[in-house]
Amino acid sequence: MPTLSLPFLGHGGDYNPDQWLSRPDILEEDVRLMQKAGCNLMSVGIFSWAALEPEEGVYTFDWLEGVLNRLHAAGISVFLATPSGARPSWMSQKYPEVLRVRPDGGRNLHGGRHNHCFTSPVYREKVAKINEALARRFGHHPSVVGWHISNELSGECHCEMCQQAFRSFLKDRYGDLDALNAAWWTGFWSKTFTDWNQIHSPTPQGEDALLGLTLAWRRFVTHQTVDFVKAEMEPLRRLTPDLPVTTNLMCCFGGFDYQTLAHQIDFTSYDSYPGWGVGPDEKNAAEAAFNYDYMRCLKNRPFALMESTPSQVNWHDICKLKKPGMHLLSSLQAVAHGADTVQYFQWRQSRGGAEKFHGAVVSHEGSENTRTFHDVAEVGETLKKLQDVRGRMPAPKVAILYDQENRWALDRSEGPRRDKKYLETVIRHYAALKRRGVDVDVIDETCDLSSYALVDAPLLYMLRPGAAERLTRFVEQGGVLTATCMTGRVDEEDLCFLGGFPGPLRPLFGIWAEETDALTDSECNGARMEDGSVYDTHYYCDLIHAETARVLGTYASDFYAGAPCVTENEYGRGLAVYVASLPGDELLDHLFSRLLSRAGVKPLVPDLPRGVWAASRGEYLFLMNFSGREQCLSVPDGTELLSGRAVRGTVSLPATGAAVIRLTSC
Amino acid sequence: MPTLSLPFLGHGGDYNPDQWLSRPDILEEDVRLMQKAGCNLMSVGIFSWAALEPEEGVYTFDWLEGVLNRLHAAGISVFLATPSGARPSWMSQKYPEVLRVRPDGGRNLHGGRHNHCFTSPVYREKVAKINEALARRFGHHPSVVGWHISNELSGECHCEMCQQAFRSFLKDRYGDLDALNAAWWTGFWSKTFTDWNQIHSPTPQGEDALLGLTLAWRRFVTHQTVDFVKAEMEPLRRLTPDLPVTTNLMCCFGGFDYQTLAHQIDFTSYDSYPGWGVGPDEKNAAEAAFNYDYMRCLKNRPFALMESTPSQVNWHDICKLKKPGMHLLSSLQAVAHGADTVQYFQWRQSRGGAEKFHGAVVSHEGSENTRTFHDVAEVGETLKKLQDVRGRMPAPKVAILYDQENRWALDRSEGPRRDKKYLETVIRHYAALKRRGVDVDVIDETCDLSSYALVDAPLLYMLRPGAAERLTRFVEQGGVLTATCMTGRVDEEDLCFLGGFPGPLRPLFGIWAEETDALTDSECNGARMEDGSVYDTHYYCDLIHAETARVLGTYASDFYAGAPCVTENEYGRGLAVYVASLPGDELLDHLFSRLLSRAGVKPLVPDLPRGVWAASRGEYLFLMNFSGREQCLSVPDGTELLSGRAVRGTVSLPATGAAVIRLTSC
Amino acid sequence: MPTLSLPFLGHGGDYNPDQWLSRPDILEEDVRLMQKAGCNLMSVGIFSWAALEPEEGVYTFDWLEGVLNRLHAAGISVFLATPSGARPSWMSQKYPEVLRVRPDGGRNLHGGRHNHCFTSPVYREKVAKINEALARRFGHHPSVVGWHISNELSGECHCEMCQQAFRSFLKDRYGDLDALNAAWWTGFWSKTFTDWNQIHSPTPQGEDALLGLTLAWRRFVTHQTVDFVKAEMEPLRRLTPDLPVTTNLMCCFGGFDYQTLAHQIDFTSYDSYPGWGVGPDEKNAAEAAFNYDYMRCLKNRPFALMESTPSQVNWHDICKLKKPGMHLLSSLQAVAHGADTVQYFQWRQSRGGAEKFHGAVVSHEGSENTRTFHDVAEVGETLKKLQDVRGRMPAPKVAILYDQENRWALDRSEGPRRDKKYLETVIRHYAALKRRGVDVDVIDETCDLSSYALVDAPLLYMLRPGAAERLTRFVEQGGVLTATCMTGRVDEEDLCFLGGFPGPLRPLFGIWAEETDALTDSECNGARMEDGSVYDTHYYCDLIHAETARVLGTYASDFYAGAPCVTENEYGRGLAVYVASLPGDELLDHLFSRLLSRAGVKPLVPDLPRGVWAASRGEYLFLMNFSGREQCLSVPDGTELLSGRAVRGTVSLPATGAAVIRLTSC
Repeated sequence: MPTLSLPFLGHGGDYNPDQWLSRPDILEEDVRLMQKAGCNLMSVGIFSWAALEPEEGVYTFDWLEGVLNRLHAAGISVFLATPSGARPSWMSQKYPEVLRVRPDGGRNLHGGRHNHCFTSPVYREKVAKINEALARRFGHHPSVVGWHISNELSGECHCEMCQQAFRSFLKDRYGDLDALNAAWWTGFWSKTFTDWNQIHSPTPQGEDALLGLTLAWRRFVTHQTVDFVKAEMEPLRRLTPDLPVTTNLMCCFGGFDYQTLAHQIDFTSYDSYPGWGVGPDEKNAAEAAFNYDYMRCLKNRPFALMESTPSQVNWHDICKLKKPGMHLLSSLQAVAHGADTVQYFQWRQSRGGAEKFHGAVVSHEGSENTRTFHDVAEVGETLKKLQDVRGRMPAPKVAILYDQENRWALDRSEGPRRDKKYLETVIRHYAALKRRGVDVDVIDETCDLSSYALVDAPLLYMLRPGAAERLTRFVEQGGVLTATCMTGRVDEEDLCFLGGFPGPLRPLFGIWAEETDALTDSECNGARMEDGSVYDTHYYCDLIHAETARVLGTYASDFYAGAPCVTENEYGRGLAVYVASLPGDELLDHLFSRLLSRAGVKPLVPDLPRGVWAASRGEYLFLMNFSGREQCLSVPDGTELLSGRAVRGTVSLPATGAAVIRLTSC
Repeated sequence: MPTLSLPFLGHGGDYNPDQWLSRPDILEEDVRLMQKAGCNLMSVGIFSWAALEPEEGVYTFDWLEGVLNRLHAAGISVFLATPSGARPSWMSQKYPEVLRVRPDGGRNLHGGRHNHCFTSPVYREKVAKINEALARRFGHHPSVVGWHISNELSGECHCEMCQQAFRSFLKDRYGDLDALNAAWWTGFWSKTFTDWNQIHSPTPQGEDALLGLTLAWRRFVTHQTVDFVKAEMEPLRRLTPDLPVTTNLMCCFGGFDYQTLAHQIDFTSYDSYPGWGVGPDEKNAAEAAFNYDYMRCLKNRPFALMESTPSQVNWHDICKLKKPGMHLLSSLQAVAHGADTVQYFQWRQSRGGAEKFHGAVVSHEGSENTRTFHDVAEVGETLKKLQDVRGRMPAPKVAILYDQENRWALDRSEGPRRDKKYLETVIRHYAALKRRGVDVDVIDETCDLSSYALVDAPLLYMLRPGAAERLTRFVEQGGVLTATCMTGRVDEEDLCFLGGFPGPLRPLFGIWAEETDALTDSECNGARMEDGSVYDTHYYCDLIHAETARVLGTYASDFYAGAPCVTENEYGRGLAVYVASLPGDELLDHLFSRLLSRAGVKPLVPDLPRGVWAASRGEYLFLMNFSGREQCLSVPDGTELLSGRAVRGTVSLPATGAAVIRLTSC
Repeated sequence: MPTLSLPFLGHGGDYNPDQWLSRPDILEEDVRLMQKAGCNLMSVGIFSWAALEPEEGVYTFDWLEGVLNRLHAAGISVFLATPSGARPSWMSQKYPEVLRVRPDGGRNLHGGRHNHCFTSPVYREKVAKINEALARRFGHHPSVVGWHISNELSGECHCEMCQQAFRSFLKDRYGDLDALNAAWWTGFWSKTFTDWNQIHSPTPQGEDALLGLTLAWRRFVTHQTVDFVKAEMEPLRRLTPDLPVTTNLMCCFGGFDYQTLAHQIDFTSYDSYPGWGVGPDEKNAAEAAFNYDYMRCLKNRPFALMESTPSQVNWHDICKLKKPGMHLLSSLQAVAHGADTVQYFQWRQSRGGAEKFHGAVVSHEGSENTRTFHDVAEVGETLKKLQDVRGRMPAPKVAILYDQENRWALDRSEGPRRDKKYLETVIRHYAALKRRGVDVDVIDETCDLSSYALVDAPLLYMLRPGAAERLTRFVEQGGVLTATCMTGRVDEEDLCFLGGFPGPLRPLFGIWAEETDALTDSECNGARMEDGSVYDTHYYCDLIHAETARVLGTYASDFYAGAPCVTENEYGRGLAVYVASLPGDELLDHLFSRLLSRAGVKPLVPDLPRGVWAASRGEYLFLMNFSGREQCLSVPDGTELLSGRAVRGTVSLPATGAAVIRLTSC
């Protein structure tokens, strides 16, 4: 399989010249400005179907050839997009089947973007044809270095073809209705299915309280989306076997499982839009970093930062400008966590349309004389200094377990509180690990654990097949595993484990969780540790019995004050720690500090100040200051690449500043 | 008519063995655990239609016979359920007419529970057939002591058959369109109907601003639901004339009128799910007690607590565990207010499905070694000590008037404030009466008042036929009547009384309410009483003229400061008190204290501490401590049944504790 | 064209005797009470279609003739309504096409009011026929002084006939699809239209992210509504060419463009429902006054206050009674700002229906012995003293620019903040101008500016054709123009100006707005003025470059502290002021004080106390005290008409009091 392998760190963005075909002067000016901004990589053709096939079967590719030629002449490479993110109007008009059907059974009209049925044979055929034509015409154009499939895949369709495909998927998964009925526990409320055609996708107008069905539907949406992507790629794989393929993914997206998709594409790419300046930037930085590490781990390779804004977005409630320095810092953050490109949406602001006020390298004003353009050119300059980072990867000894199927099951499960806090908790735990100054992988339940010394698995409600065994083996062989309340409740079908929670992990943690209390958002309990200190805990309180585990902390209040709250269980050569509630930041800091030490994991930098982030790629150490004020750090010796200066012992970072140190010895 | 007449206080719960037919070991274990928990009464077959008739016309009753036989052998009685709360999938597939149509005209898909048209001839036929089959096979089984019809009846259907039934209902009610047009005041906004087929159920997609139509629709939904229940019962009445029939009712439900339903069933039963621990438990206790007294009064007989949770629910936003003692206390509260059973949903937690985390006697863990199981067994033990309470009733001299039709009309009426606060106000008034230590009946406008000394009728906006006459006669004959702002505005068709509010009650209260001001939720006014003390009042301020009434208090602020706020009118041998605003708790305490004294009503216990509740059944006095701390009370002499000890003068209640005293003289 | 020209200041209200035809005693009593209340003008027949044409083609007009005769005999004039605000039920039943289709494609059922398709040929025919019949029968009745068309026109229909009419409208506007595609920037997201039939009205179920389409749809809704009004008026114009026509308009309505409608009708009329007593009345007064001035300016003539409440409304969340004095004060406020009538909804409270609790002159009680009736009679008496005000107009030198198309475009545009604050900002600026004691016109971008000395144009995001030229010429010729952030971003198609904002106004203001930051609702920045004082600013911050402008104030905080925030640019003989953020009240007061002085505009009254409003009509000066406490003012000499007393130098206004001074010299 090919992979992303550029001769440079990529810099550029979505380039939509089809909006400006009537302005050849602007098309020329674009290339001049790209060179001036240090751009070397453009994504071309996203959403261009109407310009590429204005009527059915009539392909008008010449303008695109002109664009590719001009870019190539200027030394700029291209991710060539397939245009399937939006259909031309004529297609919806002639073939209404390509349009999505809503959960209420109504078929959408043409509009928006996406909004197509992934099952529709007509849509698949039209996509395959234009992809084939693009691959034949441009697949070997010297500017093209990769395929950009569709755009931000999402959504689902409830049409009759999708219902049939769903039933086929279920037949494959369960074999017969008895197995399906058992898995979905349909005996409750008389939901037993006696004919496959009785099964319909979940909808508020029909069945939406059967979690087995809902989970199966989410798995089907994953399956069908990935199947569509495979069909999209077929002509590309056939005609351009050496070109790597990606599709751009989204922040915290939960509509289908990215891990499943990742197996089909050659490299991941990501669209990053933190709300810098709205809320604390330390929190914004944590969410961004978590997603970068998630992207890096999906294929365990560097990824492309496919979209970001050089200025502000236009679709947040409050769209702040990036403060001076923030564009460089936030771009370096992506690189620090594994990005081999820094790309923008979009190159030039649209005059009209839904995103006309979205930040772009070239504004409506049109010149290079803007703060944003200068910021972009500065990133271009900086990336040139960091070329050798390309392709490097960290080697984390620490992983956090974030599982999409667990998220679906937990979030949709009823009780003991409505708002489950899963994603928020995972990111909070991730940030606490990063505060310890270590590199962190983001993995799911299907991943191999053998390379890690510590794995944190908050709210691991659902244990998918093999997960309990992998976690147990991990600890047996010396790993440190941390878990929280609500662990080990259900199997992959959301059937509760009988015999006492955390189900198959009961021996590993050496505890039995008999009950789980819920706290309101404004309540807290606390863990009173052996030394008498008390740390806040939140949201849930498992009432646990320590069976083989040792009690490290007890509840501080409520009727279960004094009962075990934090336990550890020596198991094989490792340690399994159970926090029966959800720990606040202070307890996380306390526990991770102690447990990373026990696991033998050393920080990249000692005593990292709050708000400063560290990440490594090979011998390159990135230090990023989101704290809002100047910080001085102890660091290993090396060369700081932005300044080109040698570093001995300490480095000083201005507010919103960064350093990239090539370490002398790593 | 038969009635609930058990040889014991019932203890048990919903038992759904059809979820576990593949686990005969569990079915055996169930019976052992029931005996261990002191259970003697199970509800069987709720939602079991798919297991009882897996394909059309094929009844598979053997498993149920096995269950009944096992229970009978263990000395456990059964409420046998009809399965109509949910249909099997095959029925919706073959007969789509059984599915509900939404107000927007779309027909639901199969799913959820309920979701059937109460008018559908097919559904009625299928229900009648399986009910007949169940009655023939099990109606004389020695374990069966009553019928449990369907489950938590609710909802409505807007299909064409329901529209026709609605029009027939209207023809019966109004005779001709002229009468209907006059009653609904259709001259406003040109809504005059000139053909019955122009009338459609209220819907946001059509007519939803015609209150006469909306009220008629709610009355039709009541009519049609009760008609469906009568059809359900027909085979049961015919084949098992001696078995009492119930259907389980819900907290604060407003979808149809329970009083109308109550006339058809033999005893009421109630599903009680207070949010103990979320918000002040004194308020939770008030809402629970109000509903229990409502249930008791619906048929003026003891009722069944058909469902409650031994632990936590799973469908509240925040589902707290019951604190130690709370399960016994809350179960005794139901008994204190007239329950002859304490039953749970459900016996054993489901492995899957929407309510898998709902508390149950037997948890997923499966053993008797849980806090919950012990709590349940304690209730079982305690109920044995209270056997003689069975069938006893209190004889309240005080009633609060809560009327479902008044609620519909007031809540949906526009002005002078959006949020009418009806149910909240009624419960707040009820709680104030209970703080005076008296037994209280909950009645509606159709009830006979002759047994009461004091009737409180807050927000009595709509006067149904005969109500004004009954209230007037009640006062004439010596009763004390209390009312508030917004009294006597409309007749049963929501037509305003002409000639000055409170309409036909103007002579009784001796006042004219000229205008009504609205306060925001955070504003208050006050009543300045003759002694100069000022008490807060809320939400509405009637501007009244005292005609024959005496002014007890005047408004404390706003431009009508000094105008009458509290008045009393001697009328016949009684007294009619009008509070022109909504009194806060302090004013309620002040007024009820004075008026109960005037009415000659003695408290069960003097000087009841705040948070302690008292209720009686015959010579049995229940004292329940929801105050959160220990309390000492002066009580009459008797024997305390939980401890078996004699009581002389005082009793001490621990926090979350209770006492049941058989009084020496009553 | 005829216009509103009454021989008196009108006083009266909506009179709906068709609700009371069965009560001839009440119809007689009405006339007696009208005379007692000083009423001389009733609006009759609104929503009376069912009473006028109870079955198709059968007109029953005799009752209406009786009403008109009775009113005429009592000296009361009539605005005769066309009944098209609601259809009779038989029409919807026989011709479903008259019912609206929702954006989701479903057709409404009969219900509500309005709810008819403005395109439907059947509906237009039925309206024309009954209007013709009314005009023939009553158009020359001596009581009738004007036509009241329909009622509070609003809404839209998405039926297939409307889709076709929309496409025709688009063809007229754009000529061909190339022009349309260019105008709507359909190249973005592949939205290019290649067939007119691909275009559908905006809907969440199809296209709703294409702002060009959305704007065109709003313009079409304006076009089609006005076209419907023209069709309504055809028989009236033909048969009663001398009777003026109006239709009643609504507060802050944004569904279609009132300015376009105003060109078709003879006088404007307005329904005013401030929430007096909820929130500060100074703010309520500002919103009311703004709307009055908007109504006055729509045709630059006195308008009718067609509806108001003499007491409380019933459809606000909290419906307060009017405090003593407020009914007179609020009625005088309308007159002060150009109303030649004070009318109410409605004369007599309905017994039933959606608005039965809406305030009315005659309450359900039915007599003249109510506070409300006395308040109304007082207004009647007062209006008699002000007869000479009739027809007079102010001559404002100041205008505020409020543009409906700008509102649509700005509010629906994405970025840089979701909540654009347009209408709120305009009213806040208007109130600041009024605090300076000047008369203010409310105009839109199409209006002539030559009569003004100062024009304020906040948030002038969209520059419609000719607007930039008019504004530039206005300043060239000596005017003072004030603008804010977000000015000059797009043309009439919402296409961004290229070459630097504020687009064609860049030379006029002498600035370039490079970027725009967004603030959260709770954040603020500030303008530090040359004298060092700092004034709060809000919501947006343009980062501007002063090109030819002089910097008056700089930003006080954020990374652009010190950058220009307030600038002025001498241009021709005038001055163009740009505030790069949204100024708070203090900055508005500071700027307007200085700029009105520069523009040579004198206040009506010097040093107006906060909360007191001044407005003039010819030589009549109105002073209105909404401050909540007594105020003493310096005023010119004249005669105070309410008291009949001469005024020399000062006047004292009680809280909620007013004065109307006929100035000795004006």
